[in-house]
Amino acid sequence: MESHGPRSECPINFGVELVGDRWTLLIIRDMVLSGKTSYGEFLTSEEGIATNILANRLHSLEAEGLISKRPDPIHGKKFIYNLTEKGLDLVPLIVEIALWSAKHHEIPDERKDFVHLAQTKRDELIAGLQQGIREANERLRQESI
Amino acid sequence: MESHGPRSECPINFGVELVGDRWTLLIIRDMVLSGKTSYGEFLTSEEGIATNILANRLHSLEAEGLISKRPDPIHGKKFIYNLTEKGLDLVPLIVEIALWSAKHHEIPDERKDFVHLAQTKRDELIAGLQQGIREANERLRQESI
Repeated sequence: MESHGPRSECPINFGVELVGDRWTLLIIRDMVLSGKTSYGEFLTSEEGIATNILANRLHSLEAEGLISKRPDPIHGKKFIYNLTEKGLDLVPLIVEIALWSAKHHEIPDERKDFVHLAQTKRDELIAGLQQGIREANERLRQESI
Repeated sequence: MESHGPRSECPINFGVELVGDRWTLLIIRDMVLSGKTSYGEFLTSEEGIATNILANRLHSLEAEGLISKRPDPIHGKKFIYNLTEKGLDLVPLIVEIALWSAKHHEIPDERKDFVHLAQTKRDELIAGLQQGIREANERLRQESI
């Protein structure tokens, strides 16, 4: 994540400069697969992200337009983070990482259904995840009006 | 890239611990799209990877079985790096990053054919890239016998 321009015009470089970071990808995973939307929820993830890294990555994701941030209507001092459409377009990348890992590493039971869907109905899984997040975003938007 | 076990059993975490790093992904890009196989070639990439980062990432990639390393039969002190089958399985990930970037960033002319193929013939492009690398690896193996 850089604040200056990309180091090259290569599209792959553009992508890795924005999301080629393990913590960034885990935050996106949490939003896509677990529906997490708050700082406190991201902190509870099993990998144990540090508070300063989480704050930094959320800031960068927002600056790049991958997530949006707004005050939590219930807890006034807190924020709700949602994937934007640009962020939702990363769902295929998350699925692709899972497929690669499933081929080369043992999958825990609780992820087996997800991996099976990715292996057999990749496109439907991606569309379903994206649609689910859009609907959750819309519900939150209605609630906060 | 960690030398101890993964921080969680989540397959996405497994993947991002191995390849969730911009420089790692750019090295893999160079091997997949430009057929680069040597330390010197990786150093010439436009993004300007630092020598210590390159050495570190090549070491990690080899330790994780994503690339193999052997002496260059022509330049005895140098090494040739090749993607293994486990590394070749990352080609879909590289293509997915390119597709995401192409949707959200202007694509330079020299990458337009590649992106167009990714958009219209994703699976054939992936299989073709993998096959091309396998054949190049085989040619190098024959030459070094």
